[in-house]
Amino acid sequence: MRDTLEALDAGEITVAEAESRLSGYATTAAGRFDADRERRRGIPEAVLADGKTPTETATLATTALETTGRALVTRAEPAVAEAVRDSVAETAPEASVDHDPRTRTIVVHAAAFEPPSLDATVAVVTAGTSDAPVAGEAAVVAREVGASVDFLEDVGVANIDRLLDQVDRIRGADVVVVAAGREGALPTVVAGLVDAPVIALPVSTGYGVGGDGEAALYGAIQSCTVLTTVNVDAGFIAGAQAGLIARAVDGS
Amino acid sequence: MRDTLEALDAGEITVAEAESRLSGYATTAAGRFDADRERRRGIPEAVLADGKTPTETATLATTALETTGRALVTRAEPAVAEAVRDSVAETAPEASVDHDPRTRTIVVHAAAFEPPSLDATVAVVTAGTSDAPVAGEAAVVAREVGASVDFLEDVGVANIDRLLDQVDRIRGADVVVVAAGREGALPTVVAGLVDAPVIALPVSTGYGVGGDGEAALYGAIQSCTVLTTVNVDAGFIAGAQAGLIARAVDGS
Amino acid sequence: MRDTLEALDAGEITVAEAESRLSGYATTAAGRFDADRERRRGIPEAVLADGKTPTETATLATTALETTGRALVTRAEPAVAEAVRDSVAETAPEASVDHDPRTRTIVVHAAAFEPPSLDATVAVVTAGTSDAPVAGEAAVVAREVGASVDFLEDVGVANIDRLLDQVDRIRGADVVVVAAGREGALPTVVAGLVDAPVIALPVSTGYGVGGDGEAALYGAIQSCTVLTTVNVDAGFIAGAQAGLIARAVDGS
Amino acid sequence: MRDTLEALDAGEITVAEAESRLSGYATTAAGRFDADRERRRGIPEAVLADGKTPTETATLATTALETTGRALVTRAEPAVAEAVRDSVAETAPEASVDHDPRTRTIVVHAAAFEPPSLDATVAVVTAGTSDAPVAGEAAVVAREVGASVDFLEDVGVANIDRLLDQVDRIRGADVVVVAAGREGALPTVVAGLVDAPVIALPVSTGYGVGGDGEAALYGAIQSCTVLTTVNVDAGFIAGAQAGLIARAVDGS
Amino acid sequence: MRDTLEALDAGEITVAEAESRLSGYATTAAGRFDADRERRRGIPEAVLADGKTPTETATLATTALETTGRALVTRAEPAVAEAVRDSVAETAPEASVDHDPRTRTIVVHAAAFEPPSLDATVAVVTAGTSDAPVAGEAAVVAREVGASVDFLEDVGVANIDRLLDQVDRIRGADVVVVAAGREGALPTVVAGLVDAPVIALPVSTGYGVGGDGEAALYGAIQSCTVLTTVNVDAGFIAGAQAGLIARAVDGS
Amino acid sequence: MRDTLEALDAGEITVAEAESRLSGYATTAAGRFDADRERRRGIPEAVLADGKTPTETATLATTALETTGRALVTRAEPAVAEAVRDSVAETAPEASVDHDPRTRTIVVHAAAFEPPSLDATVAVVTAGTSDAPVAGEAAVVAREVGASVDFLEDVGVANIDRLLDQVDRIRGADVVVVAAGREGALPTVVAGLVDAPVIALPVSTGYGVGGDGEAALYGAIQSCTVLTTVNVDAGFIAGAQAGLIARAVDGS
Amino acid sequence: MRDTLEALDAGEITVAEAESRLSGYATTAAGRFDADRERRRGIPEAVLADGKTPTETATLATTALETTGRALVTRAEPAVAEAVRDSVAETAPEASVDHDPRTRTIVVHAAAFEPPSLDATVAVVTAGTSDAPVAGEAAVVAREVGASVDFLEDVGVANIDRLLDQVDRIRGADVVVVAAGREGALPTVVAGLVDAPVIALPVSTGYGVGGDGEAALYGAIQSCTVLTTVNVDAGFIAGAQAGLIARAVDGS
Amino acid sequence: MRDTLEALDAGEITVAEAESRLSGYATTAAGRFDADRERRRGIPEAVLADGKTPTETATLATTALETTGRALVTRAEPAVAEAVRDSVAETAPEASVDHDPRTRTIVVHAAAFEPPSLDATVAVVTAGTSDAPVAGEAAVVAREVGASVDFLEDVGVANIDRLLDQVDRIRGADVVVVAAGREGALPTVVAGLVDAPVIALPVSTGYGVGGDGEAALYGAIQSCTVLTTVNVDAGFIAGAQAGLIARAVDGS
Repeated sequence: MRDTLEALDAGEITVAEAESRLSGYATTAAGRFDADRERRRGIPEAVLADGKTPTETATLATTALETTGRALVTRAEPAVAEAVRDSVAETAPEASVDHDPRTRTIVVHAAAFEPPSLDATVAVVTAGTSDAPVAGEAAVVAREVGASVDFLEDVGVANIDRLLDQVDRIRGADVVVVAAGREGALPTVVAGLVDAPVIALPVSTGYGVGGDGEAALYGAIQSCTVLTTVNVDAGFIAGAQAGLIARAVDGS
Repeated sequence: MRDTLEALDAGEITVAEAESRLSGYATTAAGRFDADRERRRGIPEAVLADGKTPTETATLATTALETTGRALVTRAEPAVAEAVRDSVAETAPEASVDHDPRTRTIVVHAAAFEPPSLDATVAVVTAGTSDAPVAGEAAVVAREVGASVDFLEDVGVANIDRLLDQVDRIRGADVVVVAAGREGALPTVVAGLVDAPVIALPVSTGYGVGGDGEAALYGAIQSCTVLTTVNVDAGFIAGAQAGLIARAVDGS
Repeated sequence: MRDTLEALDAGEITVAEAESRLSGYATTAAGRFDADRERRRGIPEAVLADGKTPTETATLATTALETTGRALVTRAEPAVAEAVRDSVAETAPEASVDHDPRTRTIVVHAAAFEPPSLDATVAVVTAGTSDAPVAGEAAVVAREVGASVDFLEDVGVANIDRLLDQVDRIRGADVVVVAAGREGALPTVVAGLVDAPVIALPVSTGYGVGGDGEAALYGAIQSCTVLTTVNVDAGFIAGAQAGLIARAVDGS
Repeated sequence: MRDTLEALDAGEITVAEAESRLSGYATTAAGRFDADRERRRGIPEAVLADGKTPTETATLATTALETTGRALVTRAEPAVAEAVRDSVAETAPEASVDHDPRTRTIVVHAAAFEPPSLDATVAVVTAGTSDAPVAGEAAVVAREVGASVDFLEDVGVANIDRLLDQVDRIRGADVVVVAAGREGALPTVVAGLVDAPVIALPVSTGYGVGGDGEAALYGAIQSCTVLTTVNVDAGFIAGAQAGLIARAVDGS
Repeated sequence: MRDTLEALDAGEITVAEAESRLSGYATTAAGRFDADRERRRGIPEAVLADGKTPTETATLATTALETTGRALVTRAEPAVAEAVRDSVAETAPEASVDHDPRTRTIVVHAAAFEPPSLDATVAVVTAGTSDAPVAGEAAVVAREVGASVDFLEDVGVANIDRLLDQVDRIRGADVVVVAAGREGALPTVVAGLVDAPVIALPVSTGYGVGGDGEAALYGAIQSCTVLTTVNVDAGFIAGAQAGLIARAVDGS
Repeated sequence: MRDTLEALDAGEITVAEAESRLSGYATTAAGRFDADRERRRGIPEAVLADGKTPTETATLATTALETTGRALVTRAEPAVAEAVRDSVAETAPEASVDHDPRTRTIVVHAAAFEPPSLDATVAVVTAGTSDAPVAGEAAVVAREVGASVDFLEDVGVANIDRLLDQVDRIRGADVVVVAAGREGALPTVVAGLVDAPVIALPVSTGYGVGGDGEAALYGAIQSCTVLTTVNVDAGFIAGAQAGLIARAVDGS
Repeated sequence: MRDTLEALDAGEITVAEAESRLSGYATTAAGRFDADRERRRGIPEAVLADGKTPTETATLATTALETTGRALVTRAEPAVAEAVRDSVAETAPEASVDHDPRTRTIVVHAAAFEPPSLDATVAVVTAGTSDAPVAGEAAVVAREVGASVDFLEDVGVANIDRLLDQVDRIRGADVVVVAAGREGALPTVVAGLVDAPVIALPVSTGYGVGGDGEAALYGAIQSCTVLTTVNVDAGFIAGAQAGLIARAVDGS
Repeated sequence: MRDTLEALDAGEITVAEAESRLSGYATTAAGRFDADRERRRGIPEAVLADGKTPTETATLATTALETTGRALVTRAEPAVAEAVRDSVAETAPEASVDHDPRTRTIVVHAAAFEPPSLDATVAVVTAGTSDAPVAGEAAVVAREVGASVDFLEDVGVANIDRLLDQVDRIRGADVVVVAAGREGALPTVVAGLVDAPVIALPVSTGYGVGGDGEAALYGAIQSCTVLTTVNVDAGFIAGAQAGLIARAVDGS
């Protein structure tokens, strides 16, 4: 700071330039220069449709579209997609709107938006068909961050051959997201077979005591192998973290 | 009942015989004729040493020995074994006393005791070395019931090859006990590989949230394969149930 | 492996034969030769209707029918039965479709399907009428595996006489499934009365703290008698495990 | 109140007498007249020795002795009994001091203390030997309140005959306390067999998930029969409540 | 038994008489002579309408009416009352049918039914208006058992004066049921003010962590005063247990 | 910021002065000017002795003493007091060291330290003697912040008269801390009697389910009156928050 | 009391006056003189609309209006507002009725009601938009108690700059309520930045394990800074306690 | 496979070569070729000293040393370090043995062992001094995998300035491990400030409800920012996963 002030005092810089430099200083101290951090990280702003009216969600999505060039809506039922389509059609008619009913995601890209593209692959592995929606949400997010995504369905441990048949394919990825409900054994078994970092994504299947994904989460945090986890059904977080790792791999 | 009374009334049977027959009737109603059920099932009477003084345990063990020809003590530290040895040496000097420090079990057989021998095998499978004591307790109990026991150590899912190498051996058993702590994935993986009934035996390893075997128990009751479970560290119950199944197999 | 290769090298066997033998080797290592394991075990492929549309369920059921000669649908409401009937009528008009509204199960058998028949009996015991649907699901599964099923209703411990009256009948079974909600005392009492292996099937009755079957599950894993358990309302698992034990008994 | 004031105004009573009468009024409003309620109820003042030094416990016990003519110490190890004996020997040498190591209770009666005697019986029933200490604490308290106590040991449900043999005896009581750990089935079975009010006393046996009496407590509050419960190991509360019911029976 | 047999052998009694006497013996052993225990205790058979169709409930109620002279239906919505009225009108047109929408109970008495009448009073105390339905269910049951019921509403601890004003009235009862939700402090405060046995009846009010009556139940089992408890919302159990105590008081 | 820069540019202030002013700006943005916030708030720096060696604790305490003129050690056993005394004797021989074994606190004041003195009173109320240590810790902290503390012991709800006798005294305080274990009813009852803000301080007494203060904490967060709470045994937090409120009252 | 009686005895006062004075005494003993405590504290009587019919709520609100000059309804859906408006229009047509759909509160003031006005400010801070309804309820209550309220939205820790920008504003308040769901980090961060007392208001956002505000509540009670907390979604309690502190500040 | 067999049949390859190729096939199918996976990943084999005797630990460590050229022992008390030193001195006297008492880790490197070195940095951030041992364990593991480690102590959120001062330094890392106990707010705040992937490492500090790291874990899985987590105190897992990410970054 003193350098800048002495330069100003010496007439070497203008007040405006000093102000500009010192803003940097002040905000460095405060961490403020990162107003556009989310954009730089490449993680799209997500609007959680659960608990909002379709209109509210559509408004938030179009605001995100205008600000950042894209929007991601999660847990979106068809009526929400309808509202988002209508709203986008009105405010940005040339933007693309992709709704995937299975993963309940909506991806909106402005016409001019250039999606990031990373030289890194995320494998998304599911134990059973009921894990696919949550796993799919993770895949959508990872793709939006720019990663290539390899999606492997239905390789649960009840029939270990199906998993072993796919090991080489999973080993081709830089980071692996493994979605599993019920007892959640799959992330542990996969982490025992691959070298890349593994992220467990517990899914809210199961019933009775330990149901709703609790057993699967406990299985992840107690795993005898090396892996980290997100909360039950946190497809967005798993996909975004996998994307951040993919960016680290790509950026190096 | 009327038949017996009429026979007595007709002088065809004595009072004593009528009493004997009717005792049967009364106790059938009450389930009482099974005073010797435990012996017939072949499950030894177990004395849990935890929470008892060595002397108390030794007294209970020698009583069991006198009544049933044998005794099984579980969770027995060396001082308990000492006390049991002393007590047996005094009351039944020809009986055998086998103390296994690792499983903390003591098996006492009267000299005349003929252990049951079933034509059926129980496989006891462990994920890691820390599961061995509890699994060993299950093995001791299953052997006492008369089953052949095949004990497989350290075939946890973190290195799935070790397990796959042993699949044929596990498939040779009539019933399988699978002991695992931490995330408890092994019982599910084994139940996906064998045809025989599988009993999960969660072990109190693990730490933090879901530790002390809770995650392993949840993993067992949420398993996506077919298996039943016992409580955490319940080696005696797992071994006894496996023994009962072995007896059913043998007896058919 | 070397033997096979030397035989091929010596021209004693053909390439095809060598391939066949080595496939065995490779898949033994991998556990892969068990593609048809489920069929050999006699457990029908089950489709859980909960959380699926009737159409989805019907499609899965007809696929199972085509692949394995039969299908089992669980937790099926009337609309699901309707959809399955329609779908089967179209693809396999001579197959039988049995829907039981109380247990919410649908059993579909191809015309040519020969159900397995085991020389072993499963007793299914219920504490009260509200336990009957879950217990009934277990009975349906055990029957599909080929066991004879003896179903005893409403012998809860609140009126112990009713249970004692049925003890001889329960003792006639090779394996016993005991369904109970609320405090779940019945499995413990039954396991104290019979010699055969007992499987507890906790039911999601009860209310307040420990409700929804939690108390019943805790009662099973803490039982002072020998038994194993499945999760709350896991009728399919209990019935299938009982079936596996029945097969072990029959096969010996 | 007005009556008193008018009497004073009319000179019919003195200020002192008015004050005395109105004190009664004021304290009736406040519930204050019950300073000696505990004594009237017949429940001895209990000193919980856990977490106190032997000296602290002894001081509290002798204070209770002086104030109410007796003292009850619970969870008292031998060193505490020593301290109480010494302290009583000094302050009230003619008082009796009864220490029961199994129930860890100490009962101190002043020489002049006349223990209450009620015409009512409390049955205290235990499932197994490990329930006896807690059940014994309940029995000591009920006796101190004045009830006759009938103590039945080791009639757990694993061997239902032993319980059925004692039904008539239990039916002779006016109120029944049933102590049980592990799965806690016994209170439910007993409440299905007797007419008197039943109080469940869960005991902190058991291990793993639901251990330390949790399963037994859940079993009590979910019971399909009519009973009320106290917390795990709350022998004092169970015995005191049984005593209050005995007093109600006696007093009618 | 021998006496009877000797008497028969000696010709002193007939076979029929011997059979009659010995039936007594057999069933004493089995506890079977208590087929009519529920009636003798005075607790009406209760039909829980929750989870049953109105028709099912009506059928069970009319069966109870025919067998025992009355019926009690709990958790009955208006449609259930309608169904019960119709069913009773058809099968027992002179019976009375009382439906109380607030407590959701239906009481049916046959024309010839003579309700029991005990010389004992149950006070039912509620903390707030939201506790009244559950407390009311307890009151209905206690009245059916024959007790006089004194119902005190809205004397929660947030305004302790209202409670203190009613202390004398509560003290007039032989047994007290105290219903409270939220933090459940009232049962503890009441048990500190009265001599009679107190039964806590936690109510499923409250929200967030510890809500749905959990805090109230914990408050009851941790109470620093003498009381016993039932599960959350268990109005029937609380009222029936209070009734059993009232019967014990009356019968002495 | 621009004003300062223009003043510097205009030569109206020196570089040093500009730097000084802008430091203020930068740190305002960052919140950094609050390096001495803890001192200004009047809350002493606390050293938790649990889990540290006496030497470690003594070192931290003397550092706090040097930096802020005083130190507060919590959960300090006698050996810790010894170590602190020795360490202070060496580094600041004129400082005062007050160790209170009951609350396990040590207060160290430099000779020159002038304790704050607020014109506001904190009442600290305890249910029973076992609550006193934790409540005492709260009192020590509140006093260090400068509040007058009125400590009321043993006014638990089991004997409501003792509490009612003290109501006027409690009403004299500006803020009230109420410590209670077991069922924790006291904070609710007190908050129904006074106008000042009430802080519940649950204490880890109690046993069985809901023990270790859990029931008391649940009772606080579910209270039907207005109060806020701290965690179980968090005497320091309760006392510090009461102190902050006292400061707000004093400062107004 | 004696003074009054002597005055009466001396004929200095009438019986009526003595009665009046002594009522005061009696009720002082009992805490009864506080019939109007709620009004004096300035906390409006709140009617929780959840679980009541609109008509019931409207009736309670108009009763409160008549008794205290105002009413506050919480968790009020539009239909409730309608019913309250109708009911007030009929009984007190000049009263104001303010319904805020976002916070679901209704505030009714009689025409003559003079709202309290305190010289103290409550800051209400929210982490995200989903926290606003619960935070808004707190703000409405604090305003009704008479505090000035400064409402700061959307300053969650995911973007710490937004919070740091507002620190000076928050520091201007006398007491701070911080509403946050999910992981609930905001109250801890705010309490590290301000001198005033902080009240955490956990909000029931979040999902999976620790969801519904549980993690946020745990975060509050485990905070490494000084703060107190209310239960999840307890906006009324947080606002009322903040109001009581504001009154203490104002009143001093 | 057929290609190889045909080549052998055609005499193009030897039996040995065919065997070699097919072993590859068989083990590819089985995943077996990864016997040396752990070494390739660079994660040292870890021996958990907890629950083992010093001798057992030393034996396992020297075995690891011989097999893989190094060993890592975690949770090692001084006596364990002594035993390891002795054992290594005997079997591999030139190996280095580094024991760090604070993190309780022992690192053993064979003389010839060349530690991996990655061009990637792991920042390990701690909230307070009590988090340092667990965080240090993570740092040791990450270093063993080959990452550069930047260790930042004591930047907890209670004093946000200390954290903001270090933001640039943390931003220099490729992956960030954030250790925090109590309420665990730090990982969320850090993940809001940096672009790299963040791994939360909850620490078992805290007390009362949510203590022992439970609140910190819940805070991690409910975080409103993007991060993944490990279980409480799982320093090894956090460090190893950070190492795997560092390897992915380095290897790209």
